[in-house]
Amino acid sequence: MNPLYAERMKTARRSVIRELLKLTEQPNIISFAGGLPDPDTFPREFLAQVAADEIRNNPGKTLQYTTTEGKLPLREPLSRWFAEDGMRFSPDQILITSASQQGLDLIAKVFLDPGDVVLVELPTYIGAIQAFEAMQARLVGVELEDDGMDLDRLSDAIAAARRAGQTPKLIYVVPDFQNPSGVTWSEEKRRGLVEIASREDLVIVEDMPYRKLRFTGEPVPSVASLDPEGRVVVLFTFSKVLAAGLRLGALAGPREILEKVVTMKQATDLCTSSLTQRLAVRFFQDYDVEGHMRTIRDHYRMKCHAMLRALDRYMPRREGISWTKPEGGLFLWARFPDQLDTERMLPRALDHKVAYVIGAPFFVDGTGHNTMRLSFSSATTEQLEEGVRRLGQVVEEELASLRLSQRA
Amino acid sequence: MNPLYAERMKTARRSVIRELLKLTEQPNIISFAGGLPDPDTFPREFLAQVAADEIRNNPGKTLQYTTTEGKLPLREPLSRWFAEDGMRFSPDQILITSASQQGLDLIAKVFLDPGDVVLVELPTYIGAIQAFEAMQARLVGVELEDDGMDLDRLSDAIAAARRAGQTPKLIYVVPDFQNPSGVTWSEEKRRGLVEIASREDLVIVEDMPYRKLRFTGEPVPSVASLDPEGRVVVLFTFSKVLAAGLRLGALAGPREILEKVVTMKQATDLCTSSLTQRLAVRFFQDYDVEGHMRTIRDHYRMKCHAMLRALDRYMPRREGISWTKPEGGLFLWARFPDQLDTERMLPRALDHKVAYVIGAPFFVDGTGHNTMRLSFSSATTEQLEEGVRRLGQVVEEELASLRLSQRA
Repeated sequence: MNPLYAERMKTARRSVIRELLKLTEQPNIISFAGGLPDPDTFPREFLAQVAADEIRNNPGKTLQYTTTEGKLPLREPLSRWFAEDGMRFSPDQILITSASQQGLDLIAKVFLDPGDVVLVELPTYIGAIQAFEAMQARLVGVELEDDGMDLDRLSDAIAAARRAGQTPKLIYVVPDFQNPSGVTWSEEKRRGLVEIASREDLVIVEDMPYRKLRFTGEPVPSVASLDPEGRVVVLFTFSKVLAAGLRLGALAGPREILEKVVTMKQATDLCTSSLTQRLAVRFFQDYDVEGHMRTIRDHYRMKCHAMLRALDRYMPRREGISWTKPEGGLFLWARFPDQLDTERMLPRALDHKVAYVIGAPFFVDGTGHNTMRLSFSSATTEQLEEGVRRLGQVVEEELASLRLSQRA
Repeated sequence: MNPLYAERMKTARRSVIRELLKLTEQPNIISFAGGLPDPDTFPREFLAQVAADEIRNNPGKTLQYTTTEGKLPLREPLSRWFAEDGMRFSPDQILITSASQQGLDLIAKVFLDPGDVVLVELPTYIGAIQAFEAMQARLVGVELEDDGMDLDRLSDAIAAARRAGQTPKLIYVVPDFQNPSGVTWSEEKRRGLVEIASREDLVIVEDMPYRKLRFTGEPVPSVASLDPEGRVVVLFTFSKVLAAGLRLGALAGPREILEKVVTMKQATDLCTSSLTQRLAVRFFQDYDVEGHMRTIRDHYRMKCHAMLRALDRYMPRREGISWTKPEGGLFLWARFPDQLDTERMLPRALDHKVAYVIGAPFFVDGTGHNTMRLSFSSATTEQLEEGVRRLGQVVEEELASLRLSQRA
């Protein structure tokens, strides 16, 4: 490596998944690999009209620079949206970001020195791994159960890090319909998490890209709403509720942290696009937001149920095979017997014209080779049925070939 | 400070200028302080039409995620634009960024470890100071003369840093109509800069937000076009040639560096807005780009000349008072006798309803207290005349009061 590069470049990697996705973009492949929201959920006619109107009649507010903090007429309805959901963040506690990946980058810059420990779920969101590792953090994984992190293991991991002379700083969680697992934390575990963070004096980063996409079951209070001390930073994105191509999101948190984050945002990109912010302002002002959210939820509920029905029907019933039943979001997560390696199985799946995302890259501890992420967001219901049928056959064949090679 | 914050937050500061700008935003003040492009130069009707058309008829390409590298139909015309200007960057050597401030952030991440040295002009662009300091670089200033950096001092500064056990990595320059000074480097100095970078094995970051805005005189070859070795990274922005509110720019450079930059971009914000990229694609495809550029250049030429005429007429002719005569861009730079402190003088200017930006924050060595930046971009020609008249009076009074206090 060129000796001029920074230390962080020695370990920085691109997402394996992005590379694998290229393989799955062949014709006739039914892909459950992509993590993209369904573009049918984007209100394109509305956005087309307000984009023209805003640029033509409000050019000073759409085409010129804006403040680093972001537009107040956008932070205000966001503040109300958070409040309806039990989170008290006044507009000056909200920073508009270039979607939530930038929120991760800014939090990493504000908190992380090389070697600092961030506790994450096993599995966790790959973009978070990249953002934290870019600031040379040490990521420590804690097992994710059906109702959230194993909190005993979380306490143990924090203690172990301190004993090793390391400095734990952040606990990063995606408590609602997590990417990749689809798991939702129980209220009990959320309360337990807040207690541990308080006792250990750590900051919780609560990433909620999917929270508004609950399509079944009862909402669980957000971690931020259970926090009496102001140690939770919330990341929100418009990518799944308005349009991903706008690159628009928000970071909310205690004032003292917000002030630091704004300083870093200024050094990072001065401000987020005025145009895309104005489109979101108009979304709140002029669109039937609640009706739109209902439509999106109905859409993903239908897709998720179609995939779950197909899994029930086509996936081999065998010891060691299981999958999550998400109550929202875009993803579900399947586990297979230990000897089945989903990366080794991928060529067989592509032969059968079906694709998924391998699980291992979501695990910071090197495990997860027997898992996969299945996205139900983009396929039609017919494709969901047919794709899962093919996948069931792939798994059947793979298990048979593993038995053969074991005997040999 | 909360002990959880990263080391970098101990020194991170927001731009003093942004805070000062708030003072200047009073009614009736003629402000030469803002550095914003004139919104009259933004092609709003065109953008309104193509925004509606693209969102309505091309939603998959405007509202969905796009690649980290950026849209090829945008990188292609940029490649040709660079080529017309003597720079050979193929589309795969170009990354679309969220304007050039993000280019600075990405370069800082790719190259800078704490304590590494970046050589900058005295004065230099404040956003660059912030981005490099966010990665805890040590900034070393080199005097900027009328035709570029003092290259002997540059060599000396590099040698001094090495003797002190430090690691020089980057030389950051804005060679065309610099912000803040308006200075343009001579070809001779550009060639000298490339030689020094080659001899010392350093990377040059050539920031060219204003290069397309030459309104008088002959173009000087870009530093990148004079570099046979591929050690120049170019930063470009659409903020001054299309619309600042889009937050759209590009970073071009050698493939090996580009690959590292793309890795960091993925960790930083995944990708730049699909929508704003498509607007720029259409700008190249459907707009009279050359005619548009002529219009913008004519516009700023007129403004610059109005300010220069007013300075000739109203600024006291006195030893120690001088100003630059820019051949492009948005700014000129005035120097005053050593005893005149432009920050101390600012309240007097605001009393006289005229505003400027103090020079000191642009100097990384703590000097420059007797300088100011004057932007001619946003005022009308009448305001330019009247504002400079007021400023001349302010300077006259300030010098008189300084003489009085010296005698006292």
